[in-house]
Amino acid sequence: MAGNDLLSEFLAAAIDAAKKAGEKIRNGFYQTKHIEHKGLVDLVTETDKACEDIVFNHLKQHFPSHKFIGEETTAIYGAAELTDDPTWIVDPLDGTTNFVHGFPFVCVSIGLTIGRLPMVGVVYNPIMDELFTGIRGKGAYLNGNPIKVSSKDELVKSLLATEVGTKRDKETVDATTNRINSLLFKVRSIRMGGSCALNLCGIACGRLDLTYELGYGGPWDVTAGVVIVEEAGGVVYDPCGEEFDITVSRIAASNPILKDAFVEAFQQSD
Amino acid sequence: MAGNDLLSEFLAAAIDAAKKAGEKIRNGFYQTKHIEHKGLVDLVTETDKACEDIVFNHLKQHFPSHKFIGEETTAIYGAAELTDDPTWIVDPLDGTTNFVHGFPFVCVSIGLTIGRLPMVGVVYNPIMDELFTGIRGKGAYLNGNPIKVSSKDELVKSLLATEVGTKRDKETVDATTNRINSLLFKVRSIRMGGSCALNLCGIACGRLDLTYELGYGGPWDVTAGVVIVEEAGGVVYDPCGEEFDITVSRIAASNPILKDAFVEAFQQSD
Repeated sequence: MAGNDLLSEFLAAAIDAAKKAGEKIRNGFYQTKHIEHKGLVDLVTETDKACEDIVFNHLKQHFPSHKFIGEETTAIYGAAELTDDPTWIVDPLDGTTNFVHGFPFVCVSIGLTIGRLPMVGVVYNPIMDELFTGIRGKGAYLNGNPIKVSSKDELVKSLLATEVGTKRDKETVDATTNRINSLLFKVRSIRMGGSCALNLCGIACGRLDLTYELGYGGPWDVTAGVVIVEEAGGVVYDPCGEEFDITVSRIAASNPILKDAFVEAFQQSD
Repeated sequence: MAGNDLLSEFLAAAIDAAKKAGEKIRNGFYQTKHIEHKGLVDLVTETDKACEDIVFNHLKQHFPSHKFIGEETTAIYGAAELTDDPTWIVDPLDGTTNFVHGFPFVCVSIGLTIGRLPMVGVVYNPIMDELFTGIRGKGAYLNGNPIKVSSKDELVKSLLATEVGTKRDKETVDATTNRINSLLFKVRSIRMGGSCALNLCGIACGRLDLTYELGYGGPWDVTAGVVIVEEAGGVVYDPCGEEFDITVSRIAASNPILKDAFVEAFQQSD
């Protein structure tokens, strides 16, 4: 297991990488409304790819022996196997639909696993200039200030974030809206912001009390967020109550008090 | 009908009032996580009431002959009748649930009707420091820069914002989620941000392509937003396609191109 000093060095490099990629995202964000559809598709692809290159190049320069898993690289070359080696898991642009539309919830998400365990996390929203960071055992921060999960102790007072995903087959859509229907009777309200990584950070800083998402893109959407939530005093789990598995696209997060009640409500909604 | 100079004077006063109330909202926003439940309820009530007082006092001082309709005043004294007189319609704190939870979509919404027609609108989000303004006939602005609605021409490419409201009887919840289910097959994705006024401003600046909401609190949620949307080149209508009626809590907004397709999709979802 890497020492604290080493983890701090990893975090510092990840922050630099996130800020660089963030600048690229910010530049694109304010252009999207001024270009044609074909140009827009190109801009998204180009921004996604360029941000992954920025992040990977920066980290490879500092840590040439580390492994890398990225959304873009995976889309092109297929999934790399997650090993026990230090592995950077990166979503260069989470919230692609928001990016295209100019909705301000977009971010770069950079997580590091060691022994398959998320150890370092950086999520940076360059539009709102919010930098969420976490190192296992050393707390979670928003723009350098310590954050913690909310202290809500009842579902009925809780704000729940989820997403409708991208699949539009009838079975998936029906399951999605039936679940929302059932949960609406139990929580205060629902938010859909369009970024899985930022939903996790919302849990970490107590803006949101509960979040779940099924069928998200891959481990790059959650690796950084998992460290940040856990270091803010939260818990990450499979919404059915099982242990969270980074290789399966099912996640829920909250403070520890709400977990059992939420798992029960979720199971009843399924 | 008031002249352009007069409308500009009304707008300037409304902006000053919104900035003052915004400061009060911002102060409360960063306190909510540090106080107990009972204290929280008091803070919300107190902020809501104080912001309405700030806005009304400021505007009454400048325009003593004008009439006033506010969410808070209405809650206490009942609804004032909307007349042809110049009438300020104010939501001192839109997005109350967001305010309580620290979710950054909160705003003060100040609209002016003359002859029952929304003529001036100011929506200010003090957390993101975004000031949306509009004067009938003189365009819409975000922080002083002109804004316009998106140019999307197909539902399938459109980002739709809506809300689940506050009613939790089975009939309302089922209708809400059935509508979402049906619309999910037709639009790109759905966002729920928790502020009706900011959803309208999202349409005005093209971050969102479609929004609808049924059963919102009252005209204070939409009066300012209606001017801002229309001056940004958008249209505001009843989601069933009828003309928008400020006294009925049903609203939809989009660019003019999407209107017919959305109304058809909405009717099929009901």
